Amino acid sequence: MSNVKARPESEAPDAVVPCCPPLSERPFTAEEAERTARMFKALGDPVRLRLFSAVASHEGGEACVCDISDVGVSQPTVSHHLKKLKEAGLLTSERRGTWVYYRVEPSVLAAMGQLLAVR
Amino acid sequence: MSNVKARPESEAPDAVVPCCPPLSERPFTAEEAERTARMFKALGDPVRLRLFSAVASHEGGEACVCDISDVGVSQPTVSHHLKKLKEAGLLTSERRGTWVYYRVEPSVLAAMGQLLAVR
Repeated sequence: MSNVKARPESEAPDAVVPCCPPLSERPFTAEEAERTARMFKALGDPVRLRLFSAVASHEGGEACVCDISDVGVSQPTVSHHLKKLKEAGLLTSERRGTWVYYRVEPSVLAAMGQLLAVR
Repeated sequence: MSNVKARPESEAPDAVVPCCPPLSERPFTAEEAERTARMFKALGDPVRLRLFSAVASHEGGEACVCDISDVGVSQPTVSHHLKKLKEAGLLTSERRGTWVYYRVEPSVLAAMGQLLAVR
């Protein structure tokens, strides 16, 4: 029997594919707004924003719950919020041994930046 | 007596001064996260995002409730959401006669874009 526990396991995010032109180019359709609002909403919570910043600025551009201890919430809460960020497509994750490591998705960040470009 | 009704009246937004370095530069402090999350949260609602896009892409970069009729919500709801966007510092407003005209705040958009810059 193989050692399943130690096998690296890639966890693909629910794909949130960057979809849309800059917000100032033309009025968004309902569908575009639905897709895009999910990403902004994920960053619209102070704790999630701190966690996102902690991951994004961590050495090597990735971090696990074990690396994050100074945002004043419990480890289960940290895990919960990291999962929400992943579901919004802002983080990807990979299990390595005991821990799940989270990493920012640069293409999604760049696409969000494009949305905010001023005409 | 002067005609108060016709006097243009500038309505300054509750200042949300762009404050913070890119999210990937270093972990955000609690205060930085509070200030910044407000802006992301304001765009984290599909209806607000459509309204924001409608204003940002409107001729001349500004729009009043009278210009917005195709997002499938009532005029009072449109007004409510535009006020929320203003409170978050993303729009400014100016009363001209009967209508309040909203305009995007380019410096705030640019600052949000900077937050998302990848290291």
